[in-house]
Amino acid sequence: MSDSFSFKVTHRDSHARVGELATSHGLIHTPAFAPVGTRGAVKGITHRDLLGLDTELILANTYHLHLRPGAPLVARAGGLHRFIGWNKPILTDSGGYQVFSLGARRKIDEDGVAFRSHLDGSLWRLTPENVAEIQACLGSDIAMVFDECTNYPVSEEEAELSMQRTLRWARRGRDHFLSISDSPDRIEGEATNPGQAQFGIVQGSVYERLREQSVRQTVAIGFEGFAIGGLSVGEPADVMYRVVASTAAALPDDRVRYLMGTGMPDDLVECVARGIDLFDCVLPTRNGRNGQLLTRDGPLSIKQARFAEDHRPPDSSCDCYTCQHYSRAYLRYLYMSGEMTASTLNTLHNIHFYLDTMRRIREAIASGTFERFRQCFHETFSRRSRF
Amino acid sequence: MSDSFSFKVTHRDSHARVGELATSHGLIHTPAFAPVGTRGAVKGITHRDLLGLDTELILANTYHLHLRPGAPLVARAGGLHRFIGWNKPILTDSGGYQVFSLGARRKIDEDGVAFRSHLDGSLWRLTPENVAEIQACLGSDIAMVFDECTNYPVSEEEAELSMQRTLRWARRGRDHFLSISDSPDRIEGEATNPGQAQFGIVQGSVYERLREQSVRQTVAIGFEGFAIGGLSVGEPADVMYRVVASTAAALPDDRVRYLMGTGMPDDLVECVARGIDLFDCVLPTRNGRNGQLLTRDGPLSIKQARFAEDHRPPDSSCDCYTCQHYSRAYLRYLYMSGEMTASTLNTLHNIHFYLDTMRRIREAIASGTFERFRQCFHETFSRRSRF
Repeated sequence: MSDSFSFKVTHRDSHARVGELATSHGLIHTPAFAPVGTRGAVKGITHRDLLGLDTELILANTYHLHLRPGAPLVARAGGLHRFIGWNKPILTDSGGYQVFSLGARRKIDEDGVAFRSHLDGSLWRLTPENVAEIQACLGSDIAMVFDECTNYPVSEEEAELSMQRTLRWARRGRDHFLSISDSPDRIEGEATNPGQAQFGIVQGSVYERLREQSVRQTVAIGFEGFAIGGLSVGEPADVMYRVVASTAAALPDDRVRYLMGTGMPDDLVECVARGIDLFDCVLPTRNGRNGQLLTRDGPLSIKQARFAEDHRPPDSSCDCYTCQHYSRAYLRYLYMSGEMTASTLNTLHNIHFYLDTMRRIREAIASGTFERFRQCFHETFSRRSRF
Repeated sequence: MSDSFSFKVTHRDSHARVGELATSHGLIHTPAFAPVGTRGAVKGITHRDLLGLDTELILANTYHLHLRPGAPLVARAGGLHRFIGWNKPILTDSGGYQVFSLGARRKIDEDGVAFRSHLDGSLWRLTPENVAEIQACLGSDIAMVFDECTNYPVSEEEAELSMQRTLRWARRGRDHFLSISDSPDRIEGEATNPGQAQFGIVQGSVYERLREQSVRQTVAIGFEGFAIGGLSVGEPADVMYRVVASTAAALPDDRVRYLMGTGMPDDLVECVARGIDLFDCVLPTRNGRNGQLLTRDGPLSIKQARFAEDHRPPDSSCDCYTCQHYSRAYLRYLYMSGEMTASTLNTLHNIHFYLDTMRRIREAIASGTFERFRQCFHETFSRRSRF
């Protein structure tokens, strides 16, 4: 367990909160959004671009890094920060979500998950213990405990069995994390970040009773922070908001709360209102590569023919590099031509929009005007394109 | 013809020269290298990156822009500089090389070339006149006259016929360029750059007699600058160097000399030694995307397994962003993972290497030490990888 890891709430506005999450690689101002760098690179842009956007945290995927280049190689390079040349905080997910997404290519038992690599079909295994070891080698600042992620919809019975397995795995994962912290040389490879923290993950699908039980027992195990998993998997938005509200309220007030894999910009605003501090999502990067620009007015699909001679920037109120230098016409042309610069410029804009939204959220909470911000946001932002 | 266009030789060292090429979008220090931005974007990197590398000129392709988005659209946007958001000099090629590369998809007659689009098979036509018009719409700072590019090898007889057609086309292209300059409103669309200059292209394959004749008659037509075409098409290096030496020597001393489509870094040094002022080539960008990094020691193929745990930068003497921040191990991993950031980082390094080589060439010429520079360069640089 880390001395360099701490979380402090500095401002509150109803359930929303502003905080500072300190890690051994620097401070994260919450509510925060982490761009996803699956394989140790945020697709389409460089670390220099990310720093220019004031990115304070990126997410990398344990599953992908485990398969290639492998945690021992990363450990020998001095850890993930040194290997990829990124000196700010990194969060590594548990690998659970990726493995469960493999469907027929994986087999779950009490010990863990056996699966075939999406790269070459080779056989691999993830357990609560080796996931903790892999992440110790990677040396992320925040390591997620190995969990089982349920589909949606799922029966309450199945969700309960899965949630209870996640709890058993959480105990094993936490024990192993603590034993590595005590004697870093006991694992193959090397623990590369003595400041690493470990987060627990609350499961229980959409069932309040299960979520309540999962919170209670996950908190009892004791983690530096807590995540809400198993949402943004297909359930309606109002269901997600309801589960987030009750789960966040039940989590300890003095620990950071992380909603995994969410979401659209309006989701972020709504979940901050319910007490969430931390988000990650592939939306700004993936949708950018697919030609969707997120703006204050909502999504803009740059491929539409109507933009062929539209010389305005994507979002005239945006001060990102893309909006300050390029027109919808040029961005559409680049996208239609298959130029990779289209992905870069769209991604730059989208990450800027997400981080700028979080900045505006923090300012509104700090000045006690979050409710007004939230209303204004929804009055302008529509998921249906208004362009 | 342009008042804002001028060329001045400021230093000489034997046949090598340093000069200043003034355009309406700024100064180009020669000898210069132009990264290729085929469709109005240099693949893999943004304009911001290019400016950070002190890029003073980029090349865009008339053929590609003609097919998509089309010159009239670009003209309505205010010209290529405004459409793509690049405020420094742009050179547009003639389209000749691209069209001739289409092989069976094109048909040449005295009027010009009919061809089928590589995009959708639609029928198009390029002539000396419409190429001048397309480029007037694009508003590049340097427009290349439409030429016929011969293959290698080609018989002297065929090369002579082709060279003579190029001369007839050059007269038509120059006449049309001048008439557009006199009355910009006579063409469909709009001439968007009153400062545009037009360069003639010397052909004649590897035959000295033909090159000599082509130089004489192309110079007689009168252009703001002169290019050497039809090289770097498969001939041995010593043949290219010989033709470059005699052709450059025959061109007017007070006009800029542009060697089209060349080459490897050692080619640049050798051709500067023979009096060339300007180069373009897809090598640094294309090879970067294919995992080849050009360094002072020669090419480094980043995909090789031996780099999997090599934590040194690609080139320890290089001060580019890539070499200052990333290891061979990480770059190899990104390349093997198919991450587009690999292309970006490799391209950044390669363009930096090319532009830095040109900078060192200019400094050596200015200080009268070019011959020593040239020897040192070849002692270090080898086309066979030394890594």
